[in-house]
Amino acid sequence: MPDVEFWYDFASSYSYPAAMRVEALAAERGLALDWRPFLLGPLFAAQGWRDSPFNLYPTKGRYMWRDLERTCDALGLPLARPEPFPQNSLLAARTALALDAADRPAFSRAVYRAEFGAGRRIDDPETLAAALAGLGVAPGPALARAVDEANKAALKTQTARAAALGLPGAPCLTTPDGEVFWGNDRLEQGLDWARDHPSAERGPT
Amino acid sequence: MPDVEFWYDFASSYSYPAAMRVEALAAERGLALDWRPFLLGPLFAAQGWRDSPFNLYPTKGRYMWRDLERTCDALGLPLARPEPFPQNSLLAARTALALDAADRPAFSRAVYRAEFGAGRRIDDPETLAAALAGLGVAPGPALARAVDEANKAALKTQTARAAALGLPGAPCLTTPDGEVFWGNDRLEQGLDWARDHPSAERGPT
Repeated sequence: MPDVEFWYDFASSYSYPAAMRVEALAAERGLALDWRPFLLGPLFAAQGWRDSPFNLYPTKGRYMWRDLERTCDALGLPLARPEPFPQNSLLAARTALALDAADRPAFSRAVYRAEFGAGRRIDDPETLAAALAGLGVAPGPALARAVDEANKAALKTQTARAAALGLPGAPCLTTPDGEVFWGNDRLEQGLDWARDHPSAERGPT
Repeated sequence: MPDVEFWYDFASSYSYPAAMRVEALAAERGLALDWRPFLLGPLFAAQGWRDSPFNLYPTKGRYMWRDLERTCDALGLPLARPEPFPQNSLLAARTALALDAADRPAFSRAVYRAEFGAGRRIDDPETLAAALAGLGVAPGPALARAVDEANKAALKTQTARAAALGLPGAPCLTTPDGEVFWGNDRLEQGLDWARDHPSAERGPT
């Protein structure tokens, strides 16, 4: 079983730097990651939000964009705000989930680079096809698998599990002992925790 | 002029570890801090929140308490949840503002220790009187100054300035060049920024 699960939504701005950083940070600690695309929409809807909190609360949104700009500058990552924000991430999430697990991390990074690094739309199948082709995965069959009923159901199940785990947003890390670490700024802490609590011990009280 | 302003609300849970850490972190970087108590209530009300977002959004609240517990454990700080949460921070903020600036940091830390370290009510003048007495400040005159009209107006002005600065929550650091850093987890980054951008240069674009 993988040590740590990395939960992300392709619409989530802070998931971009997290996705670009998390694999190297896990490897440094000898941890394997399970990449878990999910949809924030149903979790937000359950809290009464019909849009991103960054749009619903403009003060928070203005802060986020500047904070993300500083974060990306420090990491040497390009940042281009996609329009509209948030992007509809349904097809990207389905496509990521339909892939072999070994292809999922590189595909996910390619989607984030297109979206937040180059400002491209990710509800456009062309964007996803280009990301797939860049990995050497044939786009046609992958995009067809993305929308088959079993895969659609699998994304619903995965999103329901995210809700059951109590994820307050994205990105999150979850550990075998039941801890949740939310945010790009919690990656190091969450991975340190997983390294230091290797077995499924008792969760938080 | 002080290099960096530290903005905090006594009701804010993450302001507790931040208040306990920030002065040493600033001193390590050769920076002076101006401690700025303010009230989040009016800023939240402007976003339509009549209670703490940690109460309005229970998933977020559950996450916060566990995250804060891990944070305090790592720092060796005691954590006791005050009831009710959030505490009414009006009198504590007025009292902090009425003090000489030199007494404000130690008083503020004493209030946070009582509230989040020992679970005491901070709308009880006895809690504030104990914090004042611990500093060698006579409680009676300080609490009287807290509620004089000029001091009440000064807290309103300070809170209006927090809103004008676009603070999305508490704690925050603000730098002379107009940057805002939100959260206990941004203290190091904000202070590094202030050290590396010492003059009032152009603010964020």
